[in-house]
Formats: sequence, C-alpha cells, structure tokens
Amino acid sequence: MSSKKPSIPSGTRDFGPLQVRRRRWMLDTIRATFERFGYQPIETPAMENLSVLEGKYGEEGDRLLFRILNQGELKLEHFTTDRSELGTLKLIQEIDEFEAQESEGYNALSQQVGSKKEDSISLNDLKKFIGFVSRNKSFLLTERGLRYDLTVPFARYVVMHQHELTLPFRRYQMQPVWRGDRPQRGRYREFWQCDADVVGSTSLIHEAEFIQIYDQALSALGLREFTIRLNHRQLLQGIATRIGAAERMTELTIALDKLDKVGREGVEKELAERGFTAEQISTLAPIFDMTGAPLAVLDQLQTWLGGNENAGVRDLRAVLALSATNPLRHAQVAVDLTLARGLSYYTGCIFEVVTHEVPMGSIGGGGRYDNLTAAFGAKEALPGAGISFGLDRLYDVIEALERFPADAAASTQVLVVHFGELTEAGFGRVSWLRAQGIAAELYHEPTKKLGKQFEFADKRGIRWAWAEGPDDRAAGLVQLKDLASGAQEALSPDAALARVQQA
Amino acid sequence: MSSKKPSIPSGTRDFGPLQVRRRRWMLDTIRATFERFGYQPIETPAMENLSVLEGKYGEEGDRLLFRILNQGELKLEHFTTDRSELGTLKLIQEIDEFEAQESEGYNALSQQVGSKKEDSISLNDLKKFIGFVSRNKSFLLTERGLRYDLTVPFARYVVMHQHELTLPFRRYQMQPVWRGDRPQRGRYREFWQCDADVVGSTSLIHEAEFIQIYDQALSALGLREFTIRLNHRQLLQGIATRIGAAERMTELTIALDKLDKVGREGVEKELAERGFTAEQISTLAPIFDMTGAPLAVLDQLQTWLGGNENAGVRDLRAVLALSATNPLRHAQVAVDLTLARGLSYYTGCIFEVVTHEVPMGSIGGGGRYDNLTAAFGAKEALPGAGISFGLDRLYDVIEALERFPADAAASTQVLVVHFGELTEAGFGRVSWLRAQGIAAELYHEPTKKLGKQFEFADKRGIRWAWAEGPDDRAAGLVQLKDLASGAQEALSPDAALARVQQA
Repeated sequence: MSSKKPSIPSGTRDFGPLQVRRRRWMLDTIRATFERFGYQPIETPAMENLSVLEGKYGEEGDRLLFRILNQGELKLEHFTTDRSELGTLKLIQEIDEFEAQESEGYNALSQQVGSKKEDSISLNDLKKFIGFVSRNKSFLLTERGLRYDLTVPFARYVVMHQHELTLPFRRYQMQPVWRGDRPQRGRYREFWQCDADVVGSTSLIHEAEFIQIYDQALSALGLREFTIRLNHRQLLQGIATRIGAAERMTELTIALDKLDKVGREGVEKELAERGFTAEQISTLAPIFDMTGAPLAVLDQLQTWLGGNENAGVRDLRAVLALSATNPLRHAQVAVDLTLARGLSYYTGCIFEVVTHEVPMGSIGGGGRYDNLTAAFGAKEALPGAGISFGLDRLYDVIEALERFPADAAASTQVLVVHFGELTEAGFGRVSWLRAQGIAAELYHEPTKKLGKQFEFADKRGIRWAWAEGPDDRAAGLVQLKDLASGAQEALSPDAALARVQQA
Repeated sequence: MSSKKPSIPSGTRDFGPLQVRRRRWMLDTIRATFERFGYQPIETPAMENLSVLEGKYGEEGDRLLFRILNQGELKLEHFTTDRSELGTLKLIQEIDEFEAQESEGYNALSQQVGSKKEDSISLNDLKKFIGFVSRNKSFLLTERGLRYDLTVPFARYVVMHQHELTLPFRRYQMQPVWRGDRPQRGRYREFWQCDADVVGSTSLIHEAEFIQIYDQALSALGLREFTIRLNHRQLLQGIATRIGAAERMTELTIALDKLDKVGREGVEKELAERGFTAEQISTLAPIFDMTGAPLAVLDQLQTWLGGNENAGVRDLRAVLALSATNPLRHAQVAVDLTLARGLSYYTGCIFEVVTHEVPMGSIGGGGRYDNLTAAFGAKEALPGAGISFGLDRLYDVIEALERFPADAAASTQVLVVHFGELTEAGFGRVSWLRAQGIAAELYHEPTKKLGKQFEFADKRGIRWAWAEGPDDRAAGLVQLKDLASGAQEALSPDAALARVQQA
C-alpha cells in the first residue's frame, strides 16, 4: 500500500459532474443537428490494429500514436523498476550512461560500446540479458494502437461494412481520440472529436449543408460571432497556374496559409526564399486585395484568372447559391484564398470555422476528398466530404463566454430532510418523489439538526428542502423550503410537488 | 497501399447506427434512474498511470491490463517487422530458435547461449544490438494502462479531488473498460460498465435504494422477470462460525458459490476435499433448505445461528423494511446464502441481479465496502457501496427479448425527392423541414426517377417521401407519400408537416 498521492497521466483530465453535464449538453446539441441533416451514428473501438493506423498520419502521426503492448507473459516491471533482478544491472547502467551523454544515435553508441565499454560487459551478463529478451519477447510486440482520429477508423469501417451500407452513407461519430503530443494549454492527449462525413456522393448539397450544420450547431451552442471560411483546391491550383507555378501549388499554399501570422510581406519573403521569381510574386499581388463578400471575391478571382470558369469558382458559387436559400442564424461566410488545412488530403471545397468572440483559433474544419478508402486499397473510389467539431476547444469558448445554459447543470432537485431517525416514512416519501420524476435524495444520516441538512443541500446545489414532522404528517402537510430564497411554505404534498415541478 | 482487407482487434466491435441508437437509449435510461436517485456523473481518462492500476485486480488482473508504450523515439517496427535493418539479424534469429524449442526460461536459455550459440554472436552484432537498445530504451517503458474497471479510477478520483467533494458523494460513471481476456461469446476486450457508488456514508438507505435503482432501470429497459439476490458478508461469517470454521469463511464461500453449477452434492464434495470435517458438512446441511421469502430465510438462518441477532441479518432486515415502503415494479428480491461475488472486497451487503427470461448469468452486481481508497493509502477510511450494470450483456438480453422500443431506432423521417435537377427550391424545402425540427434529407443526385428515390428511402428506413413538382408548387401543394402504407396525399406544406410530426 503506497501512500503516494495518485495522479493521472499528463495531458488527460478528470471531468466532474458539472463538466460531464455540460459536455453532454454539447454532444446532445451537436448530435441533434447531425441527425436533423440525416447523419447516422457509428462508434468504433478505442483500439485499432496498427496496420490500420500506421502510415495514415504522416511521420509525426506515427510517432504520436499510442501503441498498446500485446498481452502474454508480461514481465515489464523487470525492465522498468526491478532491473537488478536481471543480473544485467551493469549492462543497463552503461546504457543509461550512454543516454546521459546524449549520444546521437546508433553509430556513436556502437563506437562507445566498442571502445570504452567493451571489457565491462561480462559474457555472463550478456547471456542473462539475451535470455531475458528471449523469454519476454512477446512484450516487445505491439499490434494495436489507440484511435488517433475518427476519419481513418471511418474509412476502415466503410471498407469492412460496405455491403451493408446504402450509399451515400452519412455518418457522424463523437468519440475520444488519443495523441502523444506534448500537452499544453488547450491541447490534450485525450480529446473528443465530433465528425460528420458523407461518402458515395459528389453532390455539392453536402457542402451547402455543412455550412448550415456549422451555423445551426454553433448557434445552438451559444456562439454569436463566427466565420465559416471557404476555399477550394481548384482555386489554389488556378492561382498557382496563373502565376506560372502550376507544379508548385503546395509550396505556394504553405506560404499563403501563413498570411494571418506573418502578413503579406512575410508571405512574399517566404515565397522568394522558396525560389519563386520576383515576377511570380508581383503577379500574385492582387490576390491579397481580394476580400469582401464571398461572391465578390469569386468574381474578382475569376476575372484575374481569366479564361473559362475555374472549377473551384463554379463549385463555390453553387454552394453559396444553395446556402442562400435559407438565412443563416449567426454564421458569417467568407471565401479565404489563403486557407489550406491539410491540402494534400482535400480535393475540393475546404472549410474552417473560427470564432471572433474568444481568441481560440480554429474550432472546426473539413473538406471534400476524392477517395476515403484509398489507403485500404479499395478498388472503387469512394468520394466524400466531411467536417469536424473540436469539442474541447468549443467547451473552452463557451465557458469563457459564460454561455452554458443553467439547466445544463441540472442536478438533484429535492432533499428530503428529517427530524431525527431515518424512518421508512422518509424513505417512502423520497421514493414517491422519484416516481413523479423528481431527482431527490433522503438525507443520509440520522440527525435532528436541520441546519446541517440545509447546509448539505446548499453545498450540493440542491434547491428544495422537503420536511415532514409528525405534526405536519398529521395535518397532511409538508414544509417546503426554497434554499435559493429562504422562503418556506406549508403545502399539501401534491402542491409542494407542483411547486418543484414548475420551478 | 496495402489491398489487404482491414480488420479490427479481436474482442472489439464496431457499432452501426441502430446499435449506437439502442445503446444510447439504454445509457439514457440508466442515467435517468441514477440521476433521480441523486447520483452525479463523473468521467475519467481512458488511460491511468500503471501505479494506479497495478496490484488492484490481483495477479490475473495485472496480466490482463492493456499497457501503453511511452512515446518518444519509437522505432518498434525494427523489432517487429524489420529486424534485418538492425544488423542483429543473427542474434534475433537465435532468440527465435530458443523460443521455438520452448525452452523453459532463463537458465535454460542462458545455458544455450553459453554453450551452443556463443561463437555465433559477433561482437559487432552485440554492439549494434546494445546501441539499438540504448537508443530505443524508452519504448521498453510503459507507465500507463487502459482503464480496467470504473471502481479503481473512482477511488483515485476521490483521493485526488477529496477537498472539492461534499460527502457522501454519490457518483455514477458510464464508460468503456478494457481487459485482455480471451474473447468469447458475450465477453469482449472493450465493454461498457455503468456504475453507481456512494462514498462517505454507512447508511443502509443506499442499499435499499440500490434495490429500487435495479428495479426501476431494468423495468424501464423492458425486463420483466429478474431477481435481485442479496447476501451479506456477516451472514457468511456467521455460517462459517456456526459450523466451527470461522477462519475458513473464504474457502466455505468459494464452495457454496458453486451451488448453481455443481449442486449440493458437488458443494459437499468440494468441502470434503478442502478438508472440512464430515461433522462440519452435516452441520451445514440446513443451509441448503433455507429458501423462500427473504424475511423467512433470514428468520430460519437466525434460528439456526442461535445467539444474538447476526449483524448481516440485522442489516438485511433493515434494507428489506426500507424497500417495502414502495412496491417494486418487476424485480423479485431473494436472500441467497451462497452468493459471494469477490467477497474479499465486500464487507457488508452483496448484490447480484439475474434475469430469468434469457440464459445469461449475472447482469449486474455490487456491494458495500469498508474503505474505497485504502489502496491509495488514504488515512481516513471512506466507507461506501456501489452497484454496476453490464451494458453489453443487457443489450444482448433486450435484443433476444426483442424489447428495444421502435423509437430507439429513430432515424431520418423525410426524404425530399425531386423530378430532375437538384434545385435551390428543394434545398430550401429540406432546410425548412429541419428548421421545424424534422430530420430530413434531400435526395443527393439529380434524377427524374422517383422509383429510385423511393427505393433509397426504403433501404434507409425513411418513412416519408416529400415531392413538389412545378404543378404542385403552383397549387401550393406537396405530395406526401407514406412509404410504410404506400398511401399518397396532396397537402399544403403545413398540413404535410403536421402529418409527419404526428406520426
């Protein structure tokens, strides 16, 4: 029995009652919006096979995956806490020494072993070490990892279940994901994503609906000033082509994407450093002045691009026309020619949502892709589009704005107090209240002290205290005390119930 | 790009839309019951520090914990798939050979290395191997594991947050847990628990409430014939003492617990094998005949025990008296003198729930314990009691009984169909329906074929098709087709909306 105070892993969090209730309210709100738009829920396991996860998130992603050890004859504590038992203490100590010197890798270490340390590794230690590795090799194996996002598991789901699915398949998924990122403010190792994707359709109605989904869900969550930024891969390609750098769209995009941070001069400096010519950079100049209403930006861009209608311009005009059939609640829509967001993945429209009420950066994003299941070698391309809400950032935004509704914290409504012994009568009463749908508790200990019981109710945020002494009972009355106002009334049980229900 | 069909880890499951909705309905039902009884939600991270988890679940539990590798310079693929790159191929091959011979461990292996294989380990390979281990030592470290149950994380939560908590603290928690058990029918490696525990009170009102919670939640979930079995550690202690085996209560209990499976003869045989005397076994005999109404069983037992009222008898009588203040909906209550359930943990009342409608075994259980946080070295004992619902087993029960309510599968209600092009008019209509709270979709592709659109609605389980041709629109009408009955009506949009809302 250790008396060391326990802790939780860095980057993870406990959620208390208030937080759980508020998060549930958020999830319910987003879910209701997804469902109104015909999206269907799925859930996938927390663990996926590494063959599904690896290579899908780039090199950094592979590094940040949480890998799970295979079960079996695990004796990990031998390596972690109890090294001396191995009889390889000396060997391990040396390894520690190499690490302490921050040696730069394989060759350097091998040389050190070869030169300085060679004599000190006894053959006996070596034998033991090899024997240990052999016996415990199973723990070196890892075949599973924790879900890193919801998109790859969804693609895997579609491939595995394609014969059961009616296409287009609109799915939403709201689950935690895990990433071994360095924890910092607003960045956690366990966090929730809320994704909606449709696969099996290229129709732009989905992009128009995404604008509505963001508008309706974020408005219902209490946000009032936010912008849905739109861009399109074909716009970026058109711009690159227009300045004579068709093959360098990605580089151009990476530079443009930094406009918010480094300003126009910074972007132009980076382009020059990347070898774009002065002529290309000056040709690009008008782009920075294309602002204003979305259609106006598209008109200016099309004029600048010249030639036939650009495919991205055409798509965005169609999306905006659909969107215009119904007024948005609070969202602003903007065409942002510098928006990129993992461009290598998106092939059509690109979305990003930012709030202007709190400095927070992106609270959601998404876009269209050509083939969800390409990574799993599916023969038939499954085009799709999707968006995501970042639940944890949204929570921080709503909390900072104090926009959580009071009833998202609804808790126990009534505390049945008593004047001495816990009796069957009190227990019967609290049971009766619950049968009427009231969240109620009976004070848990025998006590005559009403003040103590009121104090408990107050600490717990319980509004009503319900008391029935022998005299009350004889008169068919209960004493109902409103701990918020301090007012107390003698009422019939039914009238007291009605008072609580109406509050 | 591998074209191998992806899979999910053994013992885990994907949940499709119908399953997610049904599970959500179950969670909502259980949650509503917990909240009516004043229980507050908490959520803890999927990962816990191994120092929190290890040693809490016995030797088997430690073995079944899923351990997570530390992040860092992970190069696991070197060990798992790409060993040749290490330049230690030969070394590793030899290790494989040792394993193939199923050598029995450390000494045998060391000897093999020492005798047969010694010459074949080149110093160069050794250097590389050590260098590799040094560089990648971090991956040998594991400090985190996946949540194994909800009780230990709750105890950890209470210790960490004790200064914020008002005692008694009634908490519920509904989250997945992970165990590396061998998967089999009804046993998964990822499964959900729904726990309610109260800490900081010894009051028996909680035990009486647990009976009500089981009754109300399971009744609301559609179960009709189930029994809440009660026992008490002090009853078992009393029985052991009565037969002159006070110190052997655990052994006695293990044998009694098998009554269901092996019958009375089997129990008596096991007791004999365990060294209980013939006299002890024959003294025990009346126990097997103590059945019937709970209070009658307690009366018989008390008479047989003799002497003062047994503490367990007293507690169970009090719990039953409280419970009797309100009729139960569908639960039967029984005192089962053979019920044990992890006796080493429980110190007072013990609960188990079984359904009689489907052969399933226990669908829930719990009990009272003396000190929740003892394992974390808390100085002040925190007594408590708790119960758990096994969500996955309950799902199987409700599915087998076909008791899921139809509206637990509620999905998209209306498909707006069209007669050719996707138009802004259709998009405006589907948006309007959603604004009225209707889950609606616009058929996603331009098509004139109504039959194809109806078929899509049918496959998706969408009941209503909503069509507005140019003529309809001119007349202010919509064609509303009920795909369940085939009936079609021309109605004003408001009347059609009302029809859908009333359905």
